[in-house]
Amino acid sequence: MNIVEPAVQLLAHTAIVPDAIEHRLEIQEESTDAETLTVFAGRSCYESWSRPNEKTREDKDYLRRTLFEQGHFSILEHASATFYLTGVSRALLAEITRHRHLSFSVMSQRFVDESEANIVIPPAVRRSNARVTYASEDFRDDWVGDIPEALEWWGQEAVWSYEEIVEALQGEGLPRKQAREAARAVLPNMVETRIVVTGNLRAWHEVIERRTAPDADAEFQEVANLIRKELQRLAPEVFPEP
Amino acid sequence: MNIVEPAVQLLAHTAIVPDAIEHRLEIQEESTDAETLTVFAGRSCYESWSRPNEKTREDKDYLRRTLFEQGHFSILEHASATFYLTGVSRALLAEITRHRHLSFSVMSQRFVDESEANIVIPPAVRRSNARVTYASEDFRDDWVGDIPEALEWWGQEAVWSYEEIVEALQGEGLPRKQAREAARAVLPNMVETRIVVTGNLRAWHEVIERRTAPDADAEFQEVANLIRKELQRLAPEVFPEP
Amino acid sequence: MNIVEPAVQLLAHTAIVPDAIEHRLEIQEESTDAETLTVFAGRSCYESWSRPNEKTREDKDYLRRTLFEQGHFSILEHASATFYLTGVSRALLAEITRHRHLSFSVMSQRFVDESEANIVIPPAVRRSNARVTYASEDFRDDWVGDIPEALEWWGQEAVWSYEEIVEALQGEGLPRKQAREAARAVLPNMVETRIVVTGNLRAWHEVIERRTAPDADAEFQEVANLIRKELQRLAPEVFPEP
Amino acid sequence: MNIVEPAVQLLAHTAIVPDAIEHRLEIQEESTDAETLTVFAGRSCYESWSRPNEKTREDKDYLRRTLFEQGHFSILEHASATFYLTGVSRALLAEITRHRHLSFSVMSQRFVDESEANIVIPPAVRRSNARVTYASEDFRDDWVGDIPEALEWWGQEAVWSYEEIVEALQGEGLPRKQAREAARAVLPNMVETRIVVTGNLRAWHEVIERRTAPDADAEFQEVANLIRKELQRLAPEVFPEP
Repeated sequence: MNIVEPAVQLLAHTAIVPDAIEHRLEIQEESTDAETLTVFAGRSCYESWSRPNEKTREDKDYLRRTLFEQGHFSILEHASATFYLTGVSRALLAEITRHRHLSFSVMSQRFVDESEANIVIPPAVRRSNARVTYASEDFRDDWVGDIPEALEWWGQEAVWSYEEIVEALQGEGLPRKQAREAARAVLPNMVETRIVVTGNLRAWHEVIERRTAPDADAEFQEVANLIRKELQRLAPEVFPEP
Repeated sequence: MNIVEPAVQLLAHTAIVPDAIEHRLEIQEESTDAETLTVFAGRSCYESWSRPNEKTREDKDYLRRTLFEQGHFSILEHASATFYLTGVSRALLAEITRHRHLSFSVMSQRFVDESEANIVIPPAVRRSNARVTYASEDFRDDWVGDIPEALEWWGQEAVWSYEEIVEALQGEGLPRKQAREAARAVLPNMVETRIVVTGNLRAWHEVIERRTAPDADAEFQEVANLIRKELQRLAPEVFPEP
Repeated sequence: MNIVEPAVQLLAHTAIVPDAIEHRLEIQEESTDAETLTVFAGRSCYESWSRPNEKTREDKDYLRRTLFEQGHFSILEHASATFYLTGVSRALLAEITRHRHLSFSVMSQRFVDESEANIVIPPAVRRSNARVTYASEDFRDDWVGDIPEALEWWGQEAVWSYEEIVEALQGEGLPRKQAREAARAVLPNMVETRIVVTGNLRAWHEVIERRTAPDADAEFQEVANLIRKELQRLAPEVFPEP
Repeated sequence: MNIVEPAVQLLAHTAIVPDAIEHRLEIQEESTDAETLTVFAGRSCYESWSRPNEKTREDKDYLRRTLFEQGHFSILEHASATFYLTGVSRALLAEITRHRHLSFSVMSQRFVDESEANIVIPPAVRRSNARVTYASEDFRDDWVGDIPEALEWWGQEAVWSYEEIVEALQGEGLPRKQAREAARAVLPNMVETRIVVTGNLRAWHEVIERRTAPDADAEFQEVANLIRKELQRLAPEVFPEP
């Protein structure tokens, strides 16, 4: 059992078929695949393939005007990005799954043995990139220092630990899946989960806007900041430096 | 701190404006509001207001054929029902919020003081209407009997209890909301939550189909069975006895 | 074949179960059902049933602050409203169906005989409540005056009219549905359609915001204004006078 | 003004980041990027990275069992594909936009000059891959042969043609966009539109299932068959030969 921290890995993203794009629209070298596809989608509505308006000839100018001045975010739905989130808590899971335009595959507490599950310390106690008030280092050392002892107690001396419940319920004739399903009742929010999550750039834009704000959940701020860094490489004009 | 069990209350549902309906379609006495509206929607696609086909003249026959023989479930989207779920665990919350066509308002662990939170025993340990293997009564008595002791320990002797963490973090200068947000890390899945949840009848139909099946999570089976009972009164032809 | 104009009828809306609400929250007389349910949902997140904050004790103040100051629109998803739109064109249909959070049942051009279909004159030619530039009355009289002649030509002298195509294709052995499906190719956008459309108040709020703006499609402005009038009776605090 | 036929071009699709995948799961050579990502998502739920079950060790066996035997379609949401549809009618547009899980950017009849718009002949009249009854070649030759004459009449002799209306309304002081918006009232369903459309593989799977069936709209069958061919190259195990 280990203490882990949130990490974000880009697993997949939208790649264009250059020939199909160039059949209509000249590709600009500085544009990423996601940006080129977004411009293609926007220009398809007006058939403005030749970039007739001088002021938006550069894709970066076109995106800035169409998205942030005119608010036409629907063209962002064509490109998407998939991340693997690890070192995140079940509390974060409860928050992020409320974004219904994202798609999720989540490590199942009904199927996976959680007796060796990792632990996520709330950002307010450790340090992170979230804009929140932090506890002192002394507090952190005290609390985190006590966790091994607490977990040992929980695992070995608690009236009923997760492992004991799984074992006892299997002894009662329950299939393993049902035993784990019931025993997860005692698992705390701070248990680690891992999530494959996909969103199109419009969905991600909304997540980043709302969840990097200082009133958002601290762990979500942290994860959203990590996701934004990846998105900035995929589509710098869509996710400019804040 | 109490032990609670899942309960479902109907808070609101769709009511028709009879005059507006009757302007086009004669209302049948045996039909509920949800059924009348669903038939109206279905017949509007074909302008078959006069119920020309004898075999589907009765709304209940029309619904049976259109829904269960032809699979035209989209007409179920016009009527909806809102429930208040209490006595459900955070594990159930994690499962039900994956249904993205439902709408949720959930008791917030960031804002509400959880030091007096209730506890939900997994259905595999107590009895419920779920089709799962159950632990013996002896086991139940043992485990549930020990819970007050466990909770007392957790509340008073644990290395760090929820209440202690909230207090300590406020002492560290964190606003109350951030202190609670961090302290919920130690709250287990079995802590009670309460949920206002709304769905149209198409969304509810899918939930009932999938979550009353014997391989579904036991607590979700239990809640889905309770919801089905309410839905059967709102639209008996849409939610027939299984 | 007649000239028709957009009309909106409220078919159904969300009604509360007062006893279930009052179990937690006192109902305020001035609040509509939709407003009471929305306040219930909002207060359930904080368990603030006793309305402890004086400034938001009145539901109308609570809604104003929660929706328009804090932007918590998700609580609007619990109440919904269903309308029957008649006298609207297929051009309007193409626009309104882009709102993916609404639910639709639409008069089918594949199943319904369109040979007697009504005609919708664009708002820019007739008068409406849309904020657009209008053609002169002379122009309107000229154009609308010529329509019967045009339609007669189209129906009787055109190289191939809708009716002729349906008849000819049936002569070719096509089932009636496939004949109509093919023949609709010649039907113009101005042909009337009729739509049963349902949305929750969050979805309707977005529609009203965007489609009553002066740059929206004129017919959509007109319909959105009519819908707003109905919504103002269902939830005056959510849809205040603009 | 030309007669055009439906065509489908793949514009973009999901590409994996091999190193990030291989950090957990060995990539199988025969699997496409979309398939590898789908397997990764499925296995993440169970942490079955080592492919412990011999029967599903090959990705193609895993996908077959997980999707078509167990019905776990949600893992298909992580990969997506974007197409450019041309030569399709406004009737097709009305049908395809009802699939709310797809994302669209559509050639705007409010902004684009339609006076030179192309024409799409219904598949029941020309030949296509749709499983419908077809009119005879004689009928086709008659009707299609008459179209230039009809269009000429429509463009030059009609009481009010599209072009005349645009010009007249601009003369009345309407901005060009509003003039075109009103004038599109006379445009028939058979006018060509062009669509950028994106869907994840779950959404596409549903479209293909429903819209290649023989009772679907003929033009939609044709387009769905063309899309399926492209999807079969991106994920052959997900879209097997029917």
